[in-house]
Amino acid sequence: MQKHYADDSLVLHTDLYQINMAEAYWADGMHERKAVFELFFRKLPFGNGYAIFAGLERVLDYLRNFCFSDSDLEYLREEVGYREDYIEYLKTVRFTGNVYSVVEGEVVFQNEPLLRIEAPLVEGQLIETALLNIVNYQTLIATKASRIKQIVKDERVMEFGTRRAQEMDAAVWGTRAAFIGGLEATSNVRAGKKFGIPVAGTHAHSLVQAYKNEYEAFHSYAKRHKNCVFLVDTYDTLKSGLPIAIQVAKELGDKINFEGIRLDSGDIAFLSKEARKMLDEAGFPNTKIVVSNDLDEYTILNLKAQGARVDSWGIGTKLITAYDQPALGAVYKLVAIENDHGEMEDTIKISGNAEKVTTPGLKKVYRIIDRENGKSEGDYIAMHDEDPASEKRLKMFHPVHTYVSKFVTNFEAVDIHQQVVKDGEVVYENPPLEEMQEHARNSLSLLWDEYKRSLNPEEYPVDLSQKCWDNKMRNIQEVRDVIQHYSRK
Amino acid sequence: MQKHYADDSLVLHTDLYQINMAEAYWADGMHERKAVFELFFRKLPFGNGYAIFAGLERVLDYLRNFCFSDSDLEYLREEVGYREDYIEYLKTVRFTGNVYSVVEGEVVFQNEPLLRIEAPLVEGQLIETALLNIVNYQTLIATKASRIKQIVKDERVMEFGTRRAQEMDAAVWGTRAAFIGGLEATSNVRAGKKFGIPVAGTHAHSLVQAYKNEYEAFHSYAKRHKNCVFLVDTYDTLKSGLPIAIQVAKELGDKINFEGIRLDSGDIAFLSKEARKMLDEAGFPNTKIVVSNDLDEYTILNLKAQGARVDSWGIGTKLITAYDQPALGAVYKLVAIENDHGEMEDTIKISGNAEKVTTPGLKKVYRIIDRENGKSEGDYIAMHDEDPASEKRLKMFHPVHTYVSKFVTNFEAVDIHQQVVKDGEVVYENPPLEEMQEHARNSLSLLWDEYKRSLNPEEYPVDLSQKCWDNKMRNIQEVRDVIQHYSRK
Repeated sequence: MQKHYADDSLVLHTDLYQINMAEAYWADGMHERKAVFELFFRKLPFGNGYAIFAGLERVLDYLRNFCFSDSDLEYLREEVGYREDYIEYLKTVRFTGNVYSVVEGEVVFQNEPLLRIEAPLVEGQLIETALLNIVNYQTLIATKASRIKQIVKDERVMEFGTRRAQEMDAAVWGTRAAFIGGLEATSNVRAGKKFGIPVAGTHAHSLVQAYKNEYEAFHSYAKRHKNCVFLVDTYDTLKSGLPIAIQVAKELGDKINFEGIRLDSGDIAFLSKEARKMLDEAGFPNTKIVVSNDLDEYTILNLKAQGARVDSWGIGTKLITAYDQPALGAVYKLVAIENDHGEMEDTIKISGNAEKVTTPGLKKVYRIIDRENGKSEGDYIAMHDEDPASEKRLKMFHPVHTYVSKFVTNFEAVDIHQQVVKDGEVVYENPPLEEMQEHARNSLSLLWDEYKRSLNPEEYPVDLSQKCWDNKMRNIQEVRDVIQHYSRK
Repeated sequence: MQKHYADDSLVLHTDLYQINMAEAYWADGMHERKAVFELFFRKLPFGNGYAIFAGLERVLDYLRNFCFSDSDLEYLREEVGYREDYIEYLKTVRFTGNVYSVVEGEVVFQNEPLLRIEAPLVEGQLIETALLNIVNYQTLIATKASRIKQIVKDERVMEFGTRRAQEMDAAVWGTRAAFIGGLEATSNVRAGKKFGIPVAGTHAHSLVQAYKNEYEAFHSYAKRHKNCVFLVDTYDTLKSGLPIAIQVAKELGDKINFEGIRLDSGDIAFLSKEARKMLDEAGFPNTKIVVSNDLDEYTILNLKAQGARVDSWGIGTKLITAYDQPALGAVYKLVAIENDHGEMEDTIKISGNAEKVTTPGLKKVYRIIDRENGKSEGDYIAMHDEDPASEKRLKMFHPVHTYVSKFVTNFEAVDIHQQVVKDGEVVYENPPLEEMQEHARNSLSLLWDEYKRSLNPEEYPVDLSQKCWDNKMRNIQEVRDVIQHYSRK
């Protein structure tokens, strides 16, 4: 049995192969070569037309504290068996590079870098796994939340999923991402404390069970909670829970605000309509109906179509686990590296699948905004030394189906990235979470509705500049030549 | 913007309503009544015939440290608005109860308690959410890993999913659960350090990209790594990666162990067979073939059916997120509570759905093992004061379809729970992880194969004793009487 090591750093929260590769680079004196990595996903999740970026705050915390702890080094030496000279080197490693990122809440798309890391090769390599782990999950959940909010519109949506989340970090970081994506509140108190997200919740079935009946349970709850939302489905919603809630509210009169009732099971469409009638007839037209029970954007859309009378939605499992697609497949690829002569050279990863071939080189991403209607025409990936803003007439063409193209005039070209880390120092201050949520709303308002519908949205253009495309083709050809060379041997 | 509070305790890792209910109990002087809660799931995940329990170590850590921190109390007072008298009370709350649990690695089934908590009402209530969060995820992943291991059998399986895990806790606790379920190694170095799981990994495509070609990359890697597994699909597996790997291995001869090649894309069935041939012909019959790329038990079964020549499987996304069912729906229910006279009384939660009606009362769960063949006949839930071991002839009947029944003789009745917390003190020592994995293997060996097949397994019997069933029916009738009573009002 292995000795106990303190879990006192996140530097080893990576795949073993990163540390193996770092060793090869270091042993060859390659480790300090300048390298450029891009983090991007190839396919939007849930068949959605956009994604909402989240995770930057956690990424910056991670980079700020990037330093092997003594116990990390001891573990690597004693248990994994790395040699002492390498361990001595690892002791000195910090993150000293530059990071460019979109901000949290930004609308992002397939095949465009969300983060660009310019750093010594070894550093860029070692941080890959953790960055993907963070950004993949948080972006996934922010996107799922945004989909739900698109359907719900102005009603209140609360995150209720902690008990079904994939362990504790997912519960708290997931609810934060959901808030960025547009949700209003969470039941997770720790997330409220940690991030300032409004917390929400009333009582569970066990309160009713503990008092044996709803009458006493509701009275007891009301003693210490002026704003009352009673859960009415412990035994029988329409025969027992709701009539008793109304009775208790009448008995207590002004002593409480009868804010709402909650339905957590049964036929929500039917029960909510019946409950609305009963509440109205009893003189409680302002008492709201809160529902929960395995909801997501699909069930909500259906409930709305059936005329369900719901004021507030509590979303659990389906949101916090992104149930219908529980992983975003973002990847992290080397796109350029310094050569023996100190010059930057592009690199490429080839694949039999055209979509999986990376786009080489140091690039920038511009959002092309039509000055007349204020809407976005698409995103435009250009080489770092191009200046699309200076063009009168911008040609935008599909990076795979290149005959699909258009010309754009009278546009603004907005670089979607900003520098967040400079020479290892974090130079970005996280705005309040509410601002990130607002940024998501504003960022979505640039998109035509066709890109935002939840079913079969139009594909938002993420195009390459001509120069960028030519460069990619040249790189592919070079690799082919190398393969030919070896095949002939 | 809310002030900053330290994230220095897990006590608020709960739903707000738990703290609201605790307040109601406390205000009514109900908070110290003895209560019994059970944690169980209603439906096995993945259509599997069993689940593997995991999460206890984390649960015990959580209970051991259950104490509101100063910043927790300040947050609850300042931001949520609880009154000072209640805050003063919360300051004194610790977990003082008893916990009975199955051990990690145990085979468990639907509708039987995995944990039973006997504690003052308020304590049992406050810990619900965190316990579910922990047990739901870890049990889900241990079960998924076990399914995969059932298909793979004796070949090596490694967990490679960190980059796609749902945040950091999922990556490390998930890989631990996967190990309990039967996997051999992980790529997550932090999990290796924290839990002593063997770590595995070689290099990624970026190594090849950094050196621009496979020849130099493999040579460089081999300099510091005697045991070499070369990733051969960066450009073209059969034309470039594999021939170069073989060339490098021949050049280096005894300087390295050419342990394996890894395939991470393309047609694994075809490529692995071709690669096997090329390796054998080149004189490397012992060099292994490692594959990865979105694998799970279904793809592995298919690859095997196609005659794929694989020695070692790396499983990422599909395992660590339990992709095809990313949440286990375990619940936590109050089954008994002390009444005004200091006697324990059963409680029940009714539902229109027969499967969702809870089974009231303080109960025990026995695994009924046939003394002749050593196999399990099913699990038997009895009231706490029953002793099935004393029966000569045990009647076991289905808890919903009660006419499905059988008599068992010559059996052993093994209580599947053990006490892990006594009066708030943890009295259980976690065994080494290898023992938990072995326990899972042993525990599975009690089951007939019909319960273990991955597709359409037989339903393993989880039956109620006659007394337990009668008690449940009586409780249902009592609730019906109460509802009638209120309906007539």
